[in-house]
Amino acid sequence: MPTIKVPVTVPSPAEDCDLLRKAFQGWGKNERLIISILAHRTAAQRRAIRATYAETYGEELLKSLEDEISGDFERAVLLWTLDPADRDAQLANEALRGWNPSNRVLIEIACTRNSSELLDMRRAYHLRYKRSLEEDVSKYTTGDFRKLLMPLVSSYRYEGIEVSRNLAKSEAKMLHEKITEQAYSHEELIWIITSRSKAQMIAIISHYKNEYGKAIIKDLKNDRQNKFVAALRAIIRCTCYPQKYLEKVIRLAMKGQRIDVNSITRIVTTRAEVDLKEIASTYYKKNNVPLEQAIKGEISGDHKKMLIALLGHDDV
Amino acid sequence: MPTIKVPVTVPSPAEDCDLLRKAFQGWGKNERLIISILAHRTAAQRRAIRATYAETYGEELLKSLEDEISGDFERAVLLWTLDPADRDAQLANEALRGWNPSNRVLIEIACTRNSSELLDMRRAYHLRYKRSLEEDVSKYTTGDFRKLLMPLVSSYRYEGIEVSRNLAKSEAKMLHEKITEQAYSHEELIWIITSRSKAQMIAIISHYKNEYGKAIIKDLKNDRQNKFVAALRAIIRCTCYPQKYLEKVIRLAMKGQRIDVNSITRIVTTRAEVDLKEIASTYYKKNNVPLEQAIKGEISGDHKKMLIALLGHDDV
Repeated sequence: MPTIKVPVTVPSPAEDCDLLRKAFQGWGKNERLIISILAHRTAAQRRAIRATYAETYGEELLKSLEDEISGDFERAVLLWTLDPADRDAQLANEALRGWNPSNRVLIEIACTRNSSELLDMRRAYHLRYKRSLEEDVSKYTTGDFRKLLMPLVSSYRYEGIEVSRNLAKSEAKMLHEKITEQAYSHEELIWIITSRSKAQMIAIISHYKNEYGKAIIKDLKNDRQNKFVAALRAIIRCTCYPQKYLEKVIRLAMKGQRIDVNSITRIVTTRAEVDLKEIASTYYKKNNVPLEQAIKGEISGDHKKMLIALLGHDDV
Repeated sequence: MPTIKVPVTVPSPAEDCDLLRKAFQGWGKNERLIISILAHRTAAQRRAIRATYAETYGEELLKSLEDEISGDFERAVLLWTLDPADRDAQLANEALRGWNPSNRVLIEIACTRNSSELLDMRRAYHLRYKRSLEEDVSKYTTGDFRKLLMPLVSSYRYEGIEVSRNLAKSEAKMLHEKITEQAYSHEELIWIITSRSKAQMIAIISHYKNEYGKAIIKDLKNDRQNKFVAALRAIIRCTCYPQKYLEKVIRLAMKGQRIDVNSITRIVTTRAEVDLKEIASTYYKKNNVPLEQAIKGEISGDHKKMLIALLGHDDV
């Protein structure tokens, strides 16, 4: 479930634009106003605001925001204000341009968005970058990772609940064989984990555990240093249990000497309208601290205020 | 351009359904009436007829048609009456279930439909078969063909006209190397021909010819018996010059002792609303016989009448 709070009576896009424009021109406290408007509008409402703004002032809202604010706060506001498909296209492109084998953003997008959201993202990618996502995956990634990521970003997983038990059985066997042989980049293994529906994947891993006595994720942990194997684990977890996976990304992002602000911003902005409530509740169970409190402890200023607002915990 | 002729004043779906239903119940000459209505309606109009028919009579129009008519005529009418995306899903599924290395139907669909038509087809495939097209490709095909067809059916080619000359140059070189080494199933070669936009592919093959003195298609003919290489040629020709490719499929279908009725029916029904005019005009240039005349010479009865109507040459 979403966490954002939208007022019972939403001002018209023209009213929102008018206030934003005045704020940009130096009237009043800009950052607070930006948050009080944008963090409390749905994707459709933000789209209407962007359209009205461009029509009224002859300038893109995102451009005005860029000129007005900066740093991590700017990044959170811009990501949030974008259309989800366009935002995912931008995140995927950034991930590819700075690609390294530890980067999981592409996996996160490919495995947590539903099939039609992924198609929308690929369409947005064409419009933004004048080429296909697959072309950029093939350009920026190499070796086994390319073999894995190409089908992953191209697949259009079935979303129904129908499961074939026989297939789950034979594919659990295949996965077990390949993992035992450490043939992690075997094409059958890659096809299975990149193309099966969520329901079918859950059936496969459940059968795997029953038949071979150990969870597939654990078997894939035998090879801890192998980044390719870590990517396989991420794909399986992210496809089967996206909220748990994303909670873990946030948890790890908070640990360490320097917190990983980008990951926190990304997950809050991309999930606030989807399932951030479940992610936050998983976080609370795992850490005994509410997510908003953890964020308040680690992030400051307007950036903090924006994330807390998206988490539904500001008092606007 | 399309070949079908739609009357200036189109009857309402209810009127069309009423006539069809009466025909099915034994009034008048059924086949002629079926052709005179369905072959002269666009995809949107046929969709409205299907919906109205189901609503009014509690039975699917396709089911009534199946009960009423038979043989090649039935196949032509059913394929035509289906929604294009649903029709492609059915054709792809048939091609996979009876798959063999000479079957080009999947390539024809993947390379002649535009990107959004292909996505619609993949969505229709989910609805019809409760699994994804990729899953079935991985189930029914094997070896190098699977390596080729998986990315081919999953790709979402960019459709803009922008071309990167540098990339075309380096990829023409890559293709030339791999073809010279007879490394036809090399992953780079497969990625290039399955993911590049039409404009980029044309730039690649044009650079190939200029730089290496011979068309890539000709170089790929050195290995005539190799069915995988034949599939590569089909993909390149079909992506770059779809109408020429489809004309050749019809031409070859007319040759030989037994004509390939299925291919003729498939191409006429799938292209009558798209580019059958160009295909027919290419056919005339190549064979000095109008396509409708060639079809009249090879196919008879109601099946012939249906195809001629779709070609825009009946006198309704």
